[in-house]
Amino acid sequence: MTSGIERAPLLTRLRELGDTGRDSAGRLSRVAGSDADRAGRDLLCKWLSAAGLRIAIDKIGNIYGIWEPPGASGAPVMIGSHIDTVIDAGVYDGCYGVLAGLSVIEALQADGRRPSRPIVVAAFTNEEGVRFAPDMMGSLVAAGGLDLDAALRSQDAAGVTLGDALASIGYAGQEQPGFLTPHVYLELHVEQGPVLEASGLPIGAVENLQGISWQRIAITGMANHAGTTPMTMRRDAGIAAARVMAFVDQQARATSGGVATVGTLTLAPGAINVIPAEARFTVDMRNPDETLLKQQEDGLSAFLDGLRAEGFTITTESLARFQPVAFDPGIAAMVEAAAAARQLGCRRMTSGAGHDAQMMARIAPSAMIFVPSKGGISHNPMEFTAESDLIAGADILLDVVRRLGECTQSTTA
Amino acid sequence: MTSGIERAPLLTRLRELGDTGRDSAGRLSRVAGSDADRAGRDLLCKWLSAAGLRIAIDKIGNIYGIWEPPGASGAPVMIGSHIDTVIDAGVYDGCYGVLAGLSVIEALQADGRRPSRPIVVAAFTNEEGVRFAPDMMGSLVAAGGLDLDAALRSQDAAGVTLGDALASIGYAGQEQPGFLTPHVYLELHVEQGPVLEASGLPIGAVENLQGISWQRIAITGMANHAGTTPMTMRRDAGIAAARVMAFVDQQARATSGGVATVGTLTLAPGAINVIPAEARFTVDMRNPDETLLKQQEDGLSAFLDGLRAEGFTITTESLARFQPVAFDPGIAAMVEAAAAARQLGCRRMTSGAGHDAQMMARIAPSAMIFVPSKGGISHNPMEFTAESDLIAGADILLDVVRRLGECTQSTTA
Repeated sequence: MTSGIERAPLLTRLRELGDTGRDSAGRLSRVAGSDADRAGRDLLCKWLSAAGLRIAIDKIGNIYGIWEPPGASGAPVMIGSHIDTVIDAGVYDGCYGVLAGLSVIEALQADGRRPSRPIVVAAFTNEEGVRFAPDMMGSLVAAGGLDLDAALRSQDAAGVTLGDALASIGYAGQEQPGFLTPHVYLELHVEQGPVLEASGLPIGAVENLQGISWQRIAITGMANHAGTTPMTMRRDAGIAAARVMAFVDQQARATSGGVATVGTLTLAPGAINVIPAEARFTVDMRNPDETLLKQQEDGLSAFLDGLRAEGFTITTESLARFQPVAFDPGIAAMVEAAAAARQLGCRRMTSGAGHDAQMMARIAPSAMIFVPSKGGISHNPMEFTAESDLIAGADILLDVVRRLGECTQSTTA
Repeated sequence: MTSGIERAPLLTRLRELGDTGRDSAGRLSRVAGSDADRAGRDLLCKWLSAAGLRIAIDKIGNIYGIWEPPGASGAPVMIGSHIDTVIDAGVYDGCYGVLAGLSVIEALQADGRRPSRPIVVAAFTNEEGVRFAPDMMGSLVAAGGLDLDAALRSQDAAGVTLGDALASIGYAGQEQPGFLTPHVYLELHVEQGPVLEASGLPIGAVENLQGISWQRIAITGMANHAGTTPMTMRRDAGIAAARVMAFVDQQARATSGGVATVGTLTLAPGAINVIPAEARFTVDMRNPDETLLKQQEDGLSAFLDGLRAEGFTITTESLARFQPVAFDPGIAAMVEAAAAARQLGCRRMTSGAGHDAQMMARIAPSAMIFVPSKGGISHNPMEFTAESDLIAGADILLDVVRRLGECTQSTTA
């Protein structure tokens, strides 16, 4: 018989953490370094301690709950995510992965399992990047991708540094970031997209994470009277932007794994009867394959060159560029096998969003497990995952950790 | 020998009127009902009086300079335009037509001509509609298309009525609007578009004026994460708007005489990594042929229906709808003949902008004469027409008025 995690504690803790940091209007915001963040961290640490875990906090504020029972040694199996939130957030994003990690350890304990490696639950600082940039900061620093001092000097809009904010809430820890290098890293997360729901499957074995290319584009044409300027004599920056939008959309549809979005656009001068002289907009392109993402970028660049040849002046600015991350195929296969063993539908998939796992993948074999998000909604109070899916995901995490931690039945159980 | 108008007075008056109503930064604004408008009107009346014209002012503030020499009777030949301006205006729009009308009368007087009909120069109130709506108000009221009291009750943003504004500047006249019904109406104007300049022709015989259809369109799709939502599962309101933009642009290019412009557009929520849930934009479509304009509207409507079938929610609102105006073909032919006689290049053309002539066309055979606008620029300090073109246009106006006014050589000349 396959044991599972205990349903009630996980759901109760999710609710309780989700009610920590609500304002008088009921809006949940536990932005990194805030008093609400402190309250959430305090609650988490209370639960970690109650499970008998040793708590370690590093200098970037990452919280680790370490289970190192007799016989466990070497690099740990790390289960992580984050408990900071966006403003007006849902309750699942990040918190689910951290609390499920705690439930996994409790299940192993209850089952009398003894891992050959320590098992660690990690809650990384400032994954959302709402107040301090960059996002995924705690895991990035822990993985050695960002200098600790530079991260601590990051300022919010009021000029407060993250270092001071962490100190003021009591979570400027003593450990050097990176003091724990995982044997493997696992992250369970709500999908934040519609794929699993649309597939009718409860489990996603996340094999990779999209590369991201963000650009800001400004097209300059010529303002003119909308009535008196014949179509053949126009240089309409708005129509040029519309053509770019249609192009990147069509290109993404034609590119395996590609997505593209124009989320912001402004026209100037912006009068009903004046041909737009300037269009400024952003393009968000993603692909799990670096070669294909580069093709999307090159395609856009060539399209813009075509517009330049028509007389438009165009500037582009790269706002962000991340290469795709390939997760560990062996762990993804374990996720699939565990789902099959529990007779849970599962598919390989790509993460469209960024996660701490992409940073930890720099230093350890890593993978993610997704569960469905209703309507694909996230970063929103409407964020929702059914309880059965939450439990199913945590069970799969348990199975994979049991295997990766080389857990044997304790002789005393 | 064909006589012409006197060059210096027209150019000097244009400059002097153009310097009336400049602010400390040198920006010209003679918005209807303002103190600057009063100053411009005072200047115009001084010039009209100096030419021996009788000045009449109606209750909507239209100024008429009436030349009714012995032997002249019946409905007048009216030459009109306006002297109110937009904010930060050029010096030609409107003023050129009014001052050229005065120069025409002076030329006829100097030449010893005696018209069989009175000849009137009209300056209509509030053509621009910057402060009080609607635009082309004075001519619309004079033509019986808008109730006088309703027009006088029109309020500016501060709640001041046009009636009060006219009274305060001393131009709430005594005459009933419409007291003068023209025999014919003529308006000489800068093109405000690029057609004549591009054709290398100094004279446009304006045979019609475009119909205008303004709509506001709101497309609602579904906001979603730009990374996690596959292309096939999106309902991107921004891309839908881009498709509408490309459609109306292409449709206008394929429709004889048609133009179409999307001058304003906003996306919501407006974040780089969020698929737009809503796009709000305006569509300005014009055509000199009502059937073709209706075809453009129907084409847009059918395209929107196609988007609705894809799952978008779309609302449309008509912001303005004017039928095309056909000017008098006989007068347009006289303009052509006059240009040919003076060996000035001329083409038939359509007015893309609105003018007082379209209102006067409701009550009298009307036509317009255009001269080139450099770069098609108007409503802007850069507005410019070469002096030779200004004089050429006024000469053509003179020739046509001479003919329409059945001017004979005075026995005393």
